[in-house]
Amino acid sequence: MNILFIGDIVGRAGRRAVRIFLDEIIEEHNIDFVISNGENSAGGFGITKKVAEELYDYGIDFFTMGNHTWDNRDIFNFIDDDPNLIRPLNYPENNPGRGWQTLKINSKNVTIVNLIGQIYMQNNDSPYHKFMELYPEIKDSDIILVDFHAEATGEKMAFARAVDGMVTAVIGTHTHVQTNDAQIFPEGTAYITDAGLTGAIDSILGMKPDKMIEKMKTSLPVSYDVGTGNVKIEGVIVKTDDQNNSVQQIMEIKKNNL
Amino acid sequence: MNILFIGDIVGRAGRRAVRIFLDEIIEEHNIDFVISNGENSAGGFGITKKVAEELYDYGIDFFTMGNHTWDNRDIFNFIDDDPNLIRPLNYPENNPGRGWQTLKINSKNVTIVNLIGQIYMQNNDSPYHKFMELYPEIKDSDIILVDFHAEATGEKMAFARAVDGMVTAVIGTHTHVQTNDAQIFPEGTAYITDAGLTGAIDSILGMKPDKMIEKMKTSLPVSYDVGTGNVKIEGVIVKTDDQNNSVQQIMEIKKNNL
Amino acid sequence: MNILFIGDIVGRAGRRAVRIFLDEIIEEHNIDFVISNGENSAGGFGITKKVAEELYDYGIDFFTMGNHTWDNRDIFNFIDDDPNLIRPLNYPENNPGRGWQTLKINSKNVTIVNLIGQIYMQNNDSPYHKFMELYPEIKDSDIILVDFHAEATGEKMAFARAVDGMVTAVIGTHTHVQTNDAQIFPEGTAYITDAGLTGAIDSILGMKPDKMIEKMKTSLPVSYDVGTGNVKIEGVIVKTDDQNNSVQQIMEIKKNNL
Amino acid sequence: MNILFIGDIVGRAGRRAVRIFLDEIIEEHNIDFVISNGENSAGGFGITKKVAEELYDYGIDFFTMGNHTWDNRDIFNFIDDDPNLIRPLNYPENNPGRGWQTLKINSKNVTIVNLIGQIYMQNNDSPYHKFMELYPEIKDSDIILVDFHAEATGEKMAFARAVDGMVTAVIGTHTHVQTNDAQIFPEGTAYITDAGLTGAIDSILGMKPDKMIEKMKTSLPVSYDVGTGNVKIEGVIVKTDDQNNSVQQIMEIKKNNL
Ligand SMILES: [Fe+2]
Ligand SMILES: [Fe+2]
Ligand SMILES: [Fe+2]
Ligand SMILES: [Fe+2]
Ligand SMILES: [Fe+2]
Ligand SMILES: [Fe+2]
Ligand SMILES: [Fe+2]
Ligand SMILES: [Fe+2]
Repeated sequence: MNILFIGDIVGRAGRRAVRIFLDEIIEEHNIDFVISNGENSAGGFGITKKVAEELYDYGIDFFTMGNHTWDNRDIFNFIDDDPNLIRPLNYPENNPGRGWQTLKINSKNVTIVNLIGQIYMQNNDSPYHKFMELYPEIKDSDIILVDFHAEATGEKMAFARAVDGMVTAVIGTHTHVQTNDAQIFPEGTAYITDAGLTGAIDSILGMKPDKMIEKMKTSLPVSYDVGTGNVKIEGVIVKTDDQNNSVQQIMEIKKNNL
Repeated sequence: MNILFIGDIVGRAGRRAVRIFLDEIIEEHNIDFVISNGENSAGGFGITKKVAEELYDYGIDFFTMGNHTWDNRDIFNFIDDDPNLIRPLNYPENNPGRGWQTLKINSKNVTIVNLIGQIYMQNNDSPYHKFMELYPEIKDSDIILVDFHAEATGEKMAFARAVDGMVTAVIGTHTHVQTNDAQIFPEGTAYITDAGLTGAIDSILGMKPDKMIEKMKTSLPVSYDVGTGNVKIEGVIVKTDDQNNSVQQIMEIKKNNL
Repeated sequence: MNILFIGDIVGRAGRRAVRIFLDEIIEEHNIDFVISNGENSAGGFGITKKVAEELYDYGIDFFTMGNHTWDNRDIFNFIDDDPNLIRPLNYPENNPGRGWQTLKINSKNVTIVNLIGQIYMQNNDSPYHKFMELYPEIKDSDIILVDFHAEATGEKMAFARAVDGMVTAVIGTHTHVQTNDAQIFPEGTAYITDAGLTGAIDSILGMKPDKMIEKMKTSLPVSYDVGTGNVKIEGVIVKTDDQNNSVQQIMEIKKNNL
Repeated sequence: MNILFIGDIVGRAGRRAVRIFLDEIIEEHNIDFVISNGENSAGGFGITKKVAEELYDYGIDFFTMGNHTWDNRDIFNFIDDDPNLIRPLNYPENNPGRGWQTLKINSKNVTIVNLIGQIYMQNNDSPYHKFMELYPEIKDSDIILVDFHAEATGEKMAFARAVDGMVTAVIGTHTHVQTNDAQIFPEGTAYITDAGLTGAIDSILGMKPDKMIEKMKTSLPVSYDVGTGNVKIEGVIVKTDDQNNSVQQIMEIKKNNL
């Protein structure tokens, strides 16, 4: 099975990148399932039903979220009804939505889990312990994919090594910069520290550079606008063996219309 | 001119990687000048005179530092006398050492500046304003290289865009994971969010995985050991035009002995 | 001279507390000069010209600010023209407003300095070094009062001890809880870790408890409303000797209409 | 019943304060039960069996801890056997020790719970949710006392308001500065934001001022020594009605030998 994981989609420019490049990637790599981090897909902050539907139309099958989950309040209207969107599992249990989902894809049970870090990210429970509590329930899935949304490289990698061999892949998100370290760990789990950014090329983290630069120069409050112009899509493809579901390959992909 | 910048060297394994690969890279890419971030070169924490000398012997010409600058107290014995090692410029002025240096390399004036971030890194002055205070003094250098040591991707990129066209290159360090975004900005400054890790391959940030995993599982205090076994070197090469000193190329490099 | 420093005024309830109690305190303690931290005086976030004028009418002579300085954009319209309102000195120099002011009160030169901490408060320059740069210019003032706006008790106290004997008083603000440690340090500087809260009694930090409690229970985003009902005023009075300007006393005050 | 809660005991000076003043306070206020935060009792960092025994000898009945729980590794040798010492409940469950304890005091069931905050304190699970999971098991206790060890005033107060009426008292610790806000909340729970410091008077948070001041001036690493000279004890007394176990009073106490 070939799974595509697309890094944080930022605003209209990010959605445009999905529209332009997704079909082509799906075809080229014979993709069976497309996940993306959607926490910035609506104007850079959160997600709306309209934006989610637009992206489902372009071919995205499933969304994970992160620290921007609740930025756009429209999510409260549909998160409990949308079977294809999850938020961090290690949020309080009384929060709307769920932190994991199992789907049937090509007759395989595929479980997706969304976790968020604790380092430089306050108010989240231990991602490791929340995952281990869940694990007995999902461990017979054919494929388990984890989006670990976090700031610190060490936290992402330590989690992935702690569950090496227990899951198919741990894909990092949040920093909006693709890392150059896709690899398969000793016990067979595929890993990348960050899948990257899907959005405007002439941008800082997907937002127009001008306000980010003004902020650097003055520290005064600014409001950020989504970048425009040429766009890129970044992510990873994880290929698994259909016999035994082991990882065969994890590869970075990036495309742009420069 | 061809400049090699090597990402954070972690402990004995990192030094071994330099010993094994540096000559080869210098030859292959016709390197004129080699800088490295040395903040973790002595046992993972700080640098010593002995370690610095070992690395000078292997061919490193210059060291920058970061939040681990003072971890090994031996640095207080030699930082004021070593012309080839700088610490963050935006540390208090009463600190030992300097935050920048100009050298003559192949008849070019090359200035290296070391900065440290403020986001998730307490007690540092504004890197942008400290840099702008210094700038009049260094702006006639043929080449200006900045090691921006920081956690947050946005802070690194915002700084680099704020000084785009004013410096030759802004090279990020600190996360110990190479990013996949080496690029030349609109006004000509070369950039990468993080140059990466020089150290043990089977490691988390250069340290043995076992203690990092134990920490993930228990949150109890642990002491970390430098990783062992096969090693890698990561960094970037910046090529400048000898006529006008503009950037021709920035390329990522990584080598390992797997 | 008797100086009253009033802790963070939070919203309408806080302004009401000033209206109700200030005259009475001024009379009772023969107050010559009234300073207050105004960073939360307009709806809990920032300050406006209208709110500042209302509070000047009630008898406040001078405002200091803090991390909420820019929350209400109206401040950009008047901060450069208002001689009686300062923002943290260790903000970037290109920011509007000033970080200190000298006034003539009862024929004494009184200098007020506003500083902000670095611990758990990003993007601020060193308060100690910024203060020491300024000091030669203000050191001949008869009285120097510092509002040190910070989260960490240790940072406030370490600063105050570092300048003990150089200034009349260091008054902490920001936590919205009065501390029970008003004291005169060995070299004569008066000190309190936090002057406290001026606002609604049935509140959390001056805001209605309901949303703060909901946040504790869910971690979901909420918007806070200023508390209502009975109110309190908290602060300290610093008494100086008119002959030699030394501190005679620092005393906590609190009044409420329960 | 009269319960004394003593604020963080810092090192030898803090233990001396307990030796000098505890008997006197017990007698004066007819104290039935003495709890103290012991996280800094051994040289400022953690606790040892020897130090715990010394303090039990002076009359302390029970210890709570905080972010310094594991600083001295001796705790691993006795925490599982000492029925009178607890560590934060919202630490991972695989950690040594327990987060709560029920004791029989004067024929009353008294439960003590130790919690730690999440704001500016990484890697802790939600204190509110961990408490609510525990609550069914302890809710029939006659008296429930919570040490909420945290940095942010708002987090302490929001927790206490969220459990107002469910517990006898929420006592804040960690900042080493006593706050001036002891009060009984609307539903009957006694509260103070911070119980204060038991240790050297001429100190910063119980440690000698010199190194803390040097740190403020240079940001260089320093090692802190416990303060010496005159000492103080700070804390609160909570008085409950022996008929219905409701809170009658919460009062701050402080004594020193100046
Ligand atoms: Fe994102
Ligand atoms: Fe994020
Ligand atoms: Fe490093
Ligand atoms: Fe670093
Ligand atoms: Fe405030
Ligand atoms: Fe504040
Ligand atoms: Fe403590
Ligand atoms: Fe503590």
